[in-house]
Amino acid sequence: MLAVDLIRKKRDGGALSRAEIGYFIAGVTAGTLPDYQASALLMAILLRGMSADETAALTDAMVRSGVRMAYPEIPGVPVDKHSTGGVGDKTSLILAPLVAACGGYVPMMSGRGLGHTGGTLDKLEAIPGFRTALSLDELRVALRTVGCALIGQTSEIAPADKKLYALRDVTGTVESIPLICASIMSKKIAEGIGGLVLDVKTGAGAFMKTRDDSRRLAAALVNIGNASDVRTESLITSMDAPLGRMVGNSLEVIESIETLKGRGPADLESLSVLLAARMLIAARVEHDEAGAERRVRGAIASGAGLEKFRAIVEHQGGDPRVVDDYGRLPSAPDREDITAAGSGHVRALHAELVGRAAVALGAGRAKLDDVVDPGVGIEVIAPVGTPVRTGEPVLRVHHRGGRGLDDAVALLRQAIEIGAAPARQPLVVERIP
Amino acid sequence: MLAVDLIRKKRDGGALSRAEIGYFIAGVTAGTLPDYQASALLMAILLRGMSADETAALTDAMVRSGVRMAYPEIPGVPVDKHSTGGVGDKTSLILAPLVAACGGYVPMMSGRGLGHTGGTLDKLEAIPGFRTALSLDELRVALRTVGCALIGQTSEIAPADKKLYALRDVTGTVESIPLICASIMSKKIAEGIGGLVLDVKTGAGAFMKTRDDSRRLAAALVNIGNASDVRTESLITSMDAPLGRMVGNSLEVIESIETLKGRGPADLESLSVLLAARMLIAARVEHDEAGAERRVRGAIASGAGLEKFRAIVEHQGGDPRVVDDYGRLPSAPDREDITAAGSGHVRALHAELVGRAAVALGAGRAKLDDVVDPGVGIEVIAPVGTPVRTGEPVLRVHHRGGRGLDDAVALLRQAIEIGAAPARQPLVVERIP
Repeated sequence: MLAVDLIRKKRDGGALSRAEIGYFIAGVTAGTLPDYQASALLMAILLRGMSADETAALTDAMVRSGVRMAYPEIPGVPVDKHSTGGVGDKTSLILAPLVAACGGYVPMMSGRGLGHTGGTLDKLEAIPGFRTALSLDELRVALRTVGCALIGQTSEIAPADKKLYALRDVTGTVESIPLICASIMSKKIAEGIGGLVLDVKTGAGAFMKTRDDSRRLAAALVNIGNASDVRTESLITSMDAPLGRMVGNSLEVIESIETLKGRGPADLESLSVLLAARMLIAARVEHDEAGAERRVRGAIASGAGLEKFRAIVEHQGGDPRVVDDYGRLPSAPDREDITAAGSGHVRALHAELVGRAAVALGAGRAKLDDVVDPGVGIEVIAPVGTPVRTGEPVLRVHHRGGRGLDDAVALLRQAIEIGAAPARQPLVVERIP
Repeated sequence: MLAVDLIRKKRDGGALSRAEIGYFIAGVTAGTLPDYQASALLMAILLRGMSADETAALTDAMVRSGVRMAYPEIPGVPVDKHSTGGVGDKTSLILAPLVAACGGYVPMMSGRGLGHTGGTLDKLEAIPGFRTALSLDELRVALRTVGCALIGQTSEIAPADKKLYALRDVTGTVESIPLICASIMSKKIAEGIGGLVLDVKTGAGAFMKTRDDSRRLAAALVNIGNASDVRTESLITSMDAPLGRMVGNSLEVIESIETLKGRGPADLESLSVLLAARMLIAARVEHDEAGAERRVRGAIASGAGLEKFRAIVEHQGGDPRVVDDYGRLPSAPDREDITAAGSGHVRALHAELVGRAAVALGAGRAKLDDVVDPGVGIEVIAPVGTPVRTGEPVLRVHHRGGRGLDDAVALLRQAIEIGAAPARQPLVVERIP
């Protein structure tokens, strides 16, 4: 088999066989396939597409590039959730403890912030001492003793994905549905789960801007999961405005804890309860959604979810006192309010612009080696639908000595739309299947 | 400027600016642009195309990656010819001396065999001692003293092309008209000519199989040349059957010398005379085709072309006695005739299959580092149109101890079509402009 023949076949619109895809991924993993051939093939895949069978074969080959975990010692079906990335989306921090508190097992592997969207690892690392770099053995211990773990991708999990992703990032080959699907699903399948709930974001602040594209991505992801014996379903949820009221790492940890205390904003709480309920169903712990939601709300009301969060923090080396004392989390010393330029209702808070403002402040990375500032971020004072008058605060910027402030303020001014009261939009816009 | 932004722009069907193309080629030349980014961009160019302006800018950037020669000491307009590659196409060996004998100046840079098509350098190197690796200074001296030189591409001429071509070869990005155009024309423009005659081959043995594709390629090449102050025109000529009667390096040298002696096969002689005449017109030595052709035929009849060939060989270190004694050229010791499987006329001799048979014998390269055997090749005993009877020889294989013979014979049997007398096809099928 010659790499150039595979490239030519895909270039001319042909379908690659399972063996050809296996050869490609084995070469990437071993480092025997030169990067310049891999990137030419990636571009051909992006422009020519891949069938469902090819995408499944690609995912499978990427899973097999590393270890596929299994937890025979666990008396249940491990489950996970994956979001395609949003602004203010801190549900992972809420779901893992809630589902574990309800009897589920959650070996959750997450990523870092990407572009204007935040990353679970960056948020967790705002907690002093919290270790996300657990080994697979440590993951296994955490799952048995705590019921869940929140960790980063280890080098044994889908190593081909790690290499390909780095290459895609610098060769303009990120935006391909089959490549995105294989990247997401290979990691989730390899972490050893039997159930998966996807949260595919749609709208101005999402990677997929249109409902059709989001539906296509969700359907492709669900197909791959089910083909690999992972019971997979997807919500499609709105990402026009930030989720909840907080954007930024420490701020989002606080809001997650508040939600576990039963004091979270309505949109964040209701999405978290629904996702946790679907995870319990995917884990075969519950069978109907109403019952599952009751159980989840019970874990909030009883404080069991909050105690599980404390246990996770403690088990992973973090300071559990942050749960009761937010002053132990890093914070930015300075504040700047963005006020309404007119009177009316907040019609829109453009999520992508808010996310980019957070990156400008230092909450995310413009370059791979940027250091994240956990303290900075943006607080939504007047969420979408709130009536405001000229000069009243809409957003509050938490910044450090003005770093990135001018850029952030310019973006946030653009992000705020004041006008007539907006129509109420549902947060969950569709479910697949 | 970021390479990934250029890649994304082209990927999404946008047009690259002159500055962006300049940045790309400068990065390729300096080695600062990683190969994996270059290959992703090449694939995007292949699949998305390039406008005439982009192709011109690409050519120009590739010319400027090295030196553009000029010959102020020469009392005339240097000219060259370029063929897109055929089987048995040895016209360069005939044209350079003929045009020089008629008062033209020909600084001809050629390539090696590629795929099933032969290369001028491989043919010339069949002559014992012949040096094709002349420096640009030596080229200048040869042009002044002999009037022409037949050399390989030097490292100073379009170095970006050399790097890109090596990358295209292994990344499935050869077959792109804009990339092909820029590759051909950058080298020709850089060699310092003021006139260029293109011979774009069309048909089963050509790179471009259809008349439309050939016309499109020819028009693109002519546009680029004229935009760079090189008076450029193109013939489109048939490459269904091999040109002349000989395929293989020594054999083609012999046939070239025979043609210069006035004893060449009709198709080869008439195409050579026409191309040489067009070159004299491009060089402003002659103004009308009939007069130019008379002058060229005169140079054959007088032996002036042959003497110029001898002078070239001598100047470039080769043994000039080959002109009178073909026994001084390497030859293969063994012969095998391929006979007619039925009675009728030779309807077709498929050029590509004949070319592949020659490569199988060792006349060309299957891999870059293969060593060419100058002695082997194929002789056409019964050209297209000849009446033959079962068992009469159609082709004669010159081989060395049976090396590659089985493969060659199988290909050649397929190449011969016997049947009703074929309609007479013109060799020159079109001219552009």
